[in-house]
Order: sequence, then structure tokens, then C-alpha cells
Amino acid sequence: MFVRQLFDRETSTYTYLIADEASNEAAIIDPVKEQFDRDVLLIEQLGFNLKYALETHVHADHITSSGKMREKFSSKVALHENSGAKCADILLTDNDELTLGDKVIKAIHTPGHTNADISFSIDGIVFTGDALLVRDCGRTDFQLGSSATLYNSINDKIFSLDENTTIYPGHDYYGFTASTVKEEKKFNNRLGNGKTEDEFIEIMDNLDLSLPKKIKESVPGNINCGL
Amino acid sequence: MFVRQLFDRETSTYTYLIADEASNEAAIIDPVKEQFDRDVLLIEQLGFNLKYALETHVHADHITSSGKMREKFSSKVALHENSGAKCADILLTDNDELTLGDKVIKAIHTPGHTNADISFSIDGIVFTGDALLVRDCGRTDFQLGSSATLYNSINDKIFSLDENTTIYPGHDYYGFTASTVKEEKKFNNRLGNGKTEDEFIEIMDNLDLSLPKKIKESVPGNINCGL
Repeated sequence: MFVRQLFDRETSTYTYLIADEASNEAAIIDPVKEQFDRDVLLIEQLGFNLKYALETHVHADHITSSGKMREKFSSKVALHENSGAKCADILLTDNDELTLGDKVIKAIHTPGHTNADISFSIDGIVFTGDALLVRDCGRTDFQLGSSATLYNSINDKIFSLDENTTIYPGHDYYGFTASTVKEEKKFNNRLGNGKTEDEFIEIMDNLDLSLPKKIKESVPGNINCGL
Repeated sequence: MFVRQLFDRETSTYTYLIADEASNEAAIIDPVKEQFDRDVLLIEQLGFNLKYALETHVHADHITSSGKMREKFSSKVALHENSGAKCADILLTDNDELTLGDKVIKAIHTPGHTNADISFSIDGIVFTGDALLVRDCGRTDFQLGSSATLYNSINDKIFSLDENTTIYPGHDYYGFTASTVKEEKKFNNRLGNGKTEDEFIEIMDNLDLSLPKKIKESVPGNINCGL
């Protein structure tokens, strides 16, 4: 299983290129418009057939290159059905499966950051988007987010995975690149060590964050696959 | 084998925490002073016994936390013997071996960026420091660097490794996190695709780079293990 983590410094976004090396079928998760040329070159150099551009959610901080990837590679764009993304080729729901060769990508609906979050699991790895970050989690104060919903998504659907599962997040602001289910269950600052739902909601209610700079163009732009 | 990549955004430096999970013996490669608290907390959370702080070279762009790590964990600081680092506990030469449990870290002298570069190989991975970066390489215009020497180090000692070896670089400026020997042999912009020594030297002679901002404090600071 090929997995390559890529970073967009301006928005601290992680993009992932994953592939089944037997068939060369590949997917890109959360590609960023400004990194389109970098990512296309990498896909071409590695000789992959890009089958999917997968979005963990409708991003509020950057614009996707999923539509441009489709134009380039005839790949299919997939988001959760709650996204309202009319541009999508595939609208996913919980437990839907996609394949790369004989490998299965499972879509796990993990709402709470927004109402349309998907974590993608494959081969002992889970790509958690903004639902769960290393020692951290996504905010819950717009795009139909809900702290109570996120609490249950993480506890019921991520922390219930095998504890050795690698977690690859959608962002990072501290210099972390990855974690494991075991680590986050113990050490996540907002959700770990058995934090109760009330404790989590209090933390989230007091974050006092300003809106993402690009939210006004990003959300409509991403519902249109960045085109 | 535990491998965790960590990033210092200000200097675009990658630090690596590696460990043998059977014995919990660990090493940190190229730790950055400003990230000391983050890295100590991670080591403590994971329950590792930090045996070594390893430097791929005497850095010119940031100051190491290796001395502070030694004070905290009684770990040993190791650099190449050409470093002139009187603070070191271990002065390494080519082919020296260190152990984490029953796993072996091999020191590969890969000079050219400086005269004291080491790449560390373990378990199908090579940490190349600034000798080889993803699609790129370190500059060769100070600290007794030499383009001809770097050309031979990379071709003879890195590109001769198994082609599936994972490359973890010491820096990245483009959003790459890792590569493989196979990829860099083909696609490295300065050294790949069979570039000749003369072609490489011409590329390096025309980089026209300014000096690193922190070189005046970093080099003497790092020869003193950051203390």
C-alpha cells in the first residue's frame, strides 16, 4: 500500500496520495488547488491511475483541486451526501466502500466538525480529515457542526478502531504528522483520557476562534469541486 | 519499528523520533531547540527511553536540542567526527553502528553539504539529513561543502541502497514529507535521471543563495550541542 503525505503550508492542510501498487489505482484525499501542479507531477511520475479525488468534508479554509483532477485524470470526485456538492460523481454515506485494485477504502461518517465529514479507512490507516487531529480536533461552530455530535463520532467510530490504526489528520498546526488510535485515546487534549461529553462541549464552547479567512469563497467553491 | 516525523515550521526542519517498540529504546534525529517541550512530552507520553540524540550534521539554520535532551533523558549525543563537536558523547565514522534494542542504526558518511554529514539507515529507511532532500539536495557552498563530494556521496551511498528504501529528508520546502531511493534516482531535479557530475556541479554553482539567517549563532551553538 502506497501512502504519501503532502503539505500545504499556507493553510496547514495535509493532502494524501494513496495507491494500490499492484494495480496502480490511486486516490487523492483533500487535494489543494494551489498544489495542483505539484500533485499532478507526482501522480504522473509514479505512474498512477487516479481513480478518485476524495474529500473528507467541504473545506472552509482552502479550495479543492478535485474538479481540476477530474479534468486531468478522469477521476471521480466523492464527498458525503450531506455536502450538497452537485459537482460530485459519488455521494457517499456511512460504510460505503470504494476500491483501489483489491484494496477497500471504507467511508466512515464522522460528523460534528461539519455535517458532512467522512473518515476514510484503508489497510490499518484512517484519514480523519478535520474530525480528529493530532492531540486536537476540528472546530464545531459553523457548517452545521456540533460538539455533541463530534464527541460521539470520535468515540464511537474512531476510538473503536484497532488501537494500532495509524491516524493521518487533515491539518496540523504543531508539527505533528500522524498519530495512532491508542495515542489519541490517551493523549488527545480535548477528547482523550476518558473526557466526558460535557467536558468536551465546555472546551469547544470556549475556543473563541475567528472565522477562517477564506470561508466565504471556500465553501461555495468546494461545493463546486473548486471549479 | 516506530517512526514519527515532526516538523519545525520556522526552519522547515524535520525531526524524527524512532524507537524499537520491543525494548522502548528510542533515538531522536535532528531535534530543534524551539520544539524541545513538544518533543519531550511526546517521548514521555510514548514511554520511550531516549538512548540517543543523533545529528545528521552541524546545522546552519537552527539550533539543536540535543544537549537539553541529554540533560533530560541521559541520552548520548552523536555526530560525525568531522563535526568538531566537543560536546558529543559519540563521534561517528562511516559504517559505525548503534542499536535500539535488537535493531541496528547504521551511520553512512555522506559528505558534501558539509564535511560532517551522516545519513542514518535502519529497517528499510534512510534519514538523509540535508545531503538528499525530496527532489532536491542541500547546498554545498559553506562548512567545507563540495558539490563533487556530494555527487559521489549520493550516487555511491544513497542511490546504491535497495530501491524501495524510504527516504526521510532533513528539510522540505515544497510540502513533501518522504520519498524512496527509486523515486529520487529517477526524479530528483539535481541528481536524478543519470545527471553527470559536471551537470550537477553546474546546477549547484548557479543557485545564488543567500546565507542562512541564523548561521552565525547556529554553527557554534550546534558544536556545543545547543547549550
